[in-house]
Amino acid sequence: MGAANLTSLASDLGGEKMEACGAPLDILIQGGTLLTMTGGDEIVIDPRIGIRDGRILFIVPAHDPLAALYSPREVIDASGCLVLPGLVNTHTHVPMVCFRGLADDLPLMDWLNNHIFPAERRFVNREMVRVGALLGIAEMILSGTTTFCDGYFHAGAIARAARESGIRCVAGMGIIDSDIDLAGEAEAAAHAAAAEKFLAKWADAKPAIVPAIFCHAPYTCSPRTIRAAKEVARRHDSLFLIHLAETAEERDFVASRFGLGPVFHLAALGVLDSRTVAIHCNWLDEEEIDCLARNGVKVSHNPRSNMKLATGVGPMPALIAAGAPVGLGTDGCASNNTHDMFGEMDGAAKLHKVFHKDPKVMSAPQVLRMATLDGARVLGLEDEIGSLAPGKRADIILVDLRKPHLTPMYNPYSHLVYAASGADVRTSIIDGKIVMRDRKVLTMDVEAAMDGVNAIAAAIGNSRRGPSGRDGMPAP
Amino acid sequence: MGAANLTSLASDLGGEKMEACGAPLDILIQGGTLLTMTGGDEIVIDPRIGIRDGRILFIVPAHDPLAALYSPREVIDASGCLVLPGLVNTHTHVPMVCFRGLADDLPLMDWLNNHIFPAERRFVNREMVRVGALLGIAEMILSGTTTFCDGYFHAGAIARAARESGIRCVAGMGIIDSDIDLAGEAEAAAHAAAAEKFLAKWADAKPAIVPAIFCHAPYTCSPRTIRAAKEVARRHDSLFLIHLAETAEERDFVASRFGLGPVFHLAALGVLDSRTVAIHCNWLDEEEIDCLARNGVKVSHNPRSNMKLATGVGPMPALIAAGAPVGLGTDGCASNNTHDMFGEMDGAAKLHKVFHKDPKVMSAPQVLRMATLDGARVLGLEDEIGSLAPGKRADIILVDLRKPHLTPMYNPYSHLVYAASGADVRTSIIDGKIVMRDRKVLTMDVEAAMDGVNAIAAAIGNSRRGPSGRDGMPAP
Repeated sequence: MGAANLTSLASDLGGEKMEACGAPLDILIQGGTLLTMTGGDEIVIDPRIGIRDGRILFIVPAHDPLAALYSPREVIDASGCLVLPGLVNTHTHVPMVCFRGLADDLPLMDWLNNHIFPAERRFVNREMVRVGALLGIAEMILSGTTTFCDGYFHAGAIARAARESGIRCVAGMGIIDSDIDLAGEAEAAAHAAAAEKFLAKWADAKPAIVPAIFCHAPYTCSPRTIRAAKEVARRHDSLFLIHLAETAEERDFVASRFGLGPVFHLAALGVLDSRTVAIHCNWLDEEEIDCLARNGVKVSHNPRSNMKLATGVGPMPALIAAGAPVGLGTDGCASNNTHDMFGEMDGAAKLHKVFHKDPKVMSAPQVLRMATLDGARVLGLEDEIGSLAPGKRADIILVDLRKPHLTPMYNPYSHLVYAASGADVRTSIIDGKIVMRDRKVLTMDVEAAMDGVNAIAAAIGNSRRGPSGRDGMPAP
Repeated sequence: MGAANLTSLASDLGGEKMEACGAPLDILIQGGTLLTMTGGDEIVIDPRIGIRDGRILFIVPAHDPLAALYSPREVIDASGCLVLPGLVNTHTHVPMVCFRGLADDLPLMDWLNNHIFPAERRFVNREMVRVGALLGIAEMILSGTTTFCDGYFHAGAIARAARESGIRCVAGMGIIDSDIDLAGEAEAAAHAAAAEKFLAKWADAKPAIVPAIFCHAPYTCSPRTIRAAKEVARRHDSLFLIHLAETAEERDFVASRFGLGPVFHLAALGVLDSRTVAIHCNWLDEEEIDCLARNGVKVSHNPRSNMKLATGVGPMPALIAAGAPVGLGTDGCASNNTHDMFGEMDGAAKLHKVFHKDPKVMSAPQVLRMATLDGARVLGLEDEIGSLAPGKRADIILVDLRKPHLTPMYNPYSHLVYAASGADVRTSIIDGKIVMRDRKVLTMDVEAAMDGVNAIAAAIGNSRRGPSGRDGMPAP
């Protein structure tokens, strides 16, 4: 590590200096310590970051006269803060905040079949999705996430909630078959038609809102449905998201049902390419790792969900070594139980160290890259977000270091991964707009979102208590 | 779970009702949801908790007229909060906050021998210990810990910092031999004399400050030193703390050096009894588990330190099943890197689930018990702290639930373990005194502690940079 090559950053401006005098600027961030996450020399002490029209216009050191030439509408003092790219959450089901803590300490299939799926069948509707999405988005903004990739029902409501609240979102339209043994051409065609409509409707919202297709899993979507959905995604050059090899049971079920393990099952269906995001990937052998990497498949690693559900430890170091881009995801809050990407970074680093009996595995800089630039690569957004450089979208967070648990600081990477939490994020800028300042979310009514989710949760809780009206769980 | 048997709690007061009318009360906590952690029926909704002379005088429901008979000096509104026993951190080296993030992603022995021990030899002195302890204590108070068990050099300075700031502390006087091969009777006798003096000096401070003896480890303390130190501890009925079976290398080294693995080595030295706390215990076979449990040895489990240093996963479910009390500890901040016991709870639950491939292992209620009542048992303080009931010391924290990431709440146990963090603790009471209110520590100058540690860290950082003055690590 060393100081970033600031001249080269400034010279990226081209003719900008000539026309800068008195020119308007939306935001000027000054002070603090910048981690650009551009690779190589990444640390800039006391930077000046100019933001205009949603993008980073310049990054220069304090002594460069360039910044002074502009007239910023807003100046953000980042003294005592780390300044870094907003975090990228590559996998969640955001409305599931409504089920946060509904059922814990259970095996995946018991948890899904006896708790989550019944609650979903009864309570998921457009309004629940809208309210849950708003709450989850508030949680994400408050903990430093600026882009999330979702997969759920009523994805349009999620996309609208994201647009309203100013967070960047890959909104995956959820597809799940009623019964993979019965699902025929008609069901696959209906899914494809809905996917077509969804992708067309949101096509112009990129890259603020990026529509995508989310097929739940090889054990819940028939081969016909998977093929048809991927075909639509391919025609729109959209991301195709799918849970893959999450549990050993899934691996065995898919192998016995289709004659191939989950990875080669999907390969045979022709859906493994660089626009497919495989979520979880805990149960892969060397051939499967090689297959995913060779096909350019992106991987979303959800360490804390996998730990809590005891579904397995994915071979992430091997996937990374094979060249697969691996990002981090929180998974839905029914399984994790928060959207805090700082916790996910800490969990990823520590899990792989102890599992591989090697403390050098998953170093702090690598894990921070997974939560920023590599997450952006997973979502195909690396040209827009994930690092801070002139021309990139201004998705930036400030982490307040003036706290006992962040004192002292020798190394900003290990600090962010091993010591900071989402609650340390002071200010968040997305697409050049300040969405949170001094821990206040400016773009939405957080209190209303909490009230809305509490009302939904009261109904869910009552339905589980039955006529006696009590199972020992107090109201919030 | 169900409502606590409130009548029995109230009736514990005996004749209290008769004399209560208008009687003074130091603090009345009202509202919220109480987790007593007493075992059995633990949840009280909208409680009234009376505190006088450092102890809990009564816990009654809102409709009980008892609370209204008293004249409280101070009323704390706990509406929207979880109210629970303060957390018990069974192992740390608090002044090591000065080395937080100094060296990460390294194997234990490289980390110790090439980074931590050299920094300690050069920078540890009474003033560093005092300032570091104050900062670490601030961090602990701010994250809900009300009792910590420490082992370090200059333990008197740590005990004084704890007394000043009002946190409860088991202060272990650190003992380490200059060289276990050379350490003779004289060195052992010198350690014993210092221990004798330390225990005598702090004998009257219990249970606010509990003096103890901390022998670093079987690989750094000679058999003579260990035996002599335990002898002194036994004479004073004091706790004897020791790192034990942290790494496979330690196990092999002790076995080859002394002919017995670490556990039976200590057993042969006669130090395994109910006043010994064995820290880490990652590498135990069934006989060793049985030996520890049969001798009543207490265990401090430090999951996140063990994960980060990749030292191993201790057989905690088996130890608990064998009857050994197991508490949680953060370890020092050079290895973890924070004192947040909420993170430790989350880490403990998730680590053992994924390691044992069983999501039912280490349930949320069990983990919360490890961080409260079982931690108190480890420290021999279970009659004073660890649960909330009339007669117990008033060590109580309030966790603010009105936050997006804590909405909704179905289950307070899973909420505390899987969703809350130290930053959600709003108010902390220790020994009947409010030490933090609305996130402000009232008993110490937190800013001064941060400045003091930053000054020490600047000297440490400069010494590592050498004459070139820079290794890429920016100043805070």
